[in-house]
Amino acid sequence: MGYYCSSLRPFSHLLMETLTLPPFSCRRIGSRHGHSFFRCSPSRLISWRAETTMSGLGNLGAQSAQKPILPEISGVEEALMGFISGTRKATEVAQAVWKKIVWKGDTVIDATCGNGHDTLALVKLVADKSGKGRVYGIDIQQSAIDSTFSLLEMSADEHERKLVQLFEVCHSKMEEIVPKENPVRLVAFNLGYLPGGDKTLITMPHTTEMALRAASKILDSKGLISIIVYVGHPGGSNELEIVEAFASSLPAETWVGCKFEMLNRPTAPILVLLFKK
Amino acid sequence: MGYYCSSLRPFSHLLMETLTLPPFSCRRIGSRHGHSFFRCSPSRLISWRAETTMSGLGNLGAQSAQKPILPEISGVEEALMGFISGTRKATEVAQAVWKKIVWKGDTVIDATCGNGHDTLALVKLVADKSGKGRVYGIDIQQSAIDSTFSLLEMSADEHERKLVQLFEVCHSKMEEIVPKENPVRLVAFNLGYLPGGDKTLITMPHTTEMALRAASKILDSKGLISIIVYVGHPGGSNELEIVEAFASSLPAETWVGCKFEMLNRPTAPILVLLFKK
Repeated sequence: MGYYCSSLRPFSHLLMETLTLPPFSCRRIGSRHGHSFFRCSPSRLISWRAETTMSGLGNLGAQSAQKPILPEISGVEEALMGFISGTRKATEVAQAVWKKIVWKGDTVIDATCGNGHDTLALVKLVADKSGKGRVYGIDIQQSAIDSTFSLLEMSADEHERKLVQLFEVCHSKMEEIVPKENPVRLVAFNLGYLPGGDKTLITMPHTTEMALRAASKILDSKGLISIIVYVGHPGGSNELEIVEAFASSLPAETWVGCKFEMLNRPTAPILVLLFKK
Repeated sequence: MGYYCSSLRPFSHLLMETLTLPPFSCRRIGSRHGHSFFRCSPSRLISWRAETTMSGLGNLGAQSAQKPILPEISGVEEALMGFISGTRKATEVAQAVWKKIVWKGDTVIDATCGNGHDTLALVKLVADKSGKGRVYGIDIQQSAIDSTFSLLEMSADEHERKLVQLFEVCHSKMEEIVPKENPVRLVAFNLGYLPGGDKTLITMPHTTEMALRAASKILDSKGLISIIVYVGHPGGSNELEIVEAFASSLPAETWVGCKFEMLNRPTAPILVLLFKK
């Protein structure tokens, strides 16, 4: 049986075999610049075991000389009032809400790494001296995982990077990635195409639905599934339909499913938040 | 030409004649308990010119012995996080947002007084020693105006009551009520039926659209139209369609129109906020 996570990138049964292994047992293929590097082809897992800081993975390391991009998450009040008055985006509201839901030491998932900004924001939220926090970053595109790796190399410190694991795999497989003993506080989705990447490679409604279902299973009580739907690209409205149908199916006794949208900007991203009571 | 503000309460041309008069010239029909009382039949205007406090209008005054109901508006963060987690209602989000938009001394409109809770909340927001604030409370139902009067008698002080004027008239007439020299900071709508009242008397889509259009004209820059749509009653979905169509028609250059709704509680009230840039 084959799993299709993108219309352009079919995954073979080899992926399933790899993923049925605990991801932490993936083969160590070497080390560069003081980091161990794991690869589980055709999917990949990148995990930091840093002995030194500020190094890179191949030519990606060249970006480390650039000015670090640091996440600045505003407060909920500032984000919401900005959203209402047109100065803040739905993504900023989402991040402000995460900040109130996620605690130091929590386990969280970035289900669509993209360029890594959310992964970086999330590791800043969970990292503390205890070293308990975990960020599982997932993206089906190699370029997204590479960009996220590069951003973390630039803008996360050694301690923070140790808490992140990046998987080049379809996000519908997240149940197989996160250890069962780790209750998940947040699963963040940015549905659509990779910003700056190939716009023909988009998240697909079928696997999005599978991923949402998986997220709802592994989410802890008082946890949140945060979904940004970019309705401005072809396929965006189909994806919104899938998200809304899934949200509507959640029992109101145990879930709160709310939607924030712009009525006079039909292509503006839509935020859906699913809170598990 | 007749104007119908309710399917059950047609207004005659007499109303139009009355409303073409400046409302403040309505006939003073007497005073009770130290308040002057104005009536513009078939519409009514109630305006306080208090010399004493804690008195009532006829038998409504009997309620003044009850514990005062004071508005407690939470912060935006508390309201939004509560909305997301299922402990706060859309009305509470709306009121929290008003608190950040409305300043002391502003002119505001409660376009659907209902039982008066929003009118009371609004006068607390605009009242200060300058005495510049104004609250125009409008409702087509006499019982709503009476309830609002009674609530203000109980829970607003003499100084606050002086800032309120109540109109028993269709809210589509708001342009004729508010003096042109008063820029309006907020127009609040609670669309549906009067809580605890006759559920067959509902706001009507046609006059709702007229009222929204009127509100958009008299609203000041940086002002807000706040609309709660109760979709759980017959006609609620039609009304939502009207509100969404109106919001969608607003140019994105000068307006921000956003909607907050519960996806897995289809009868939960929906909040629409229209911010004039």
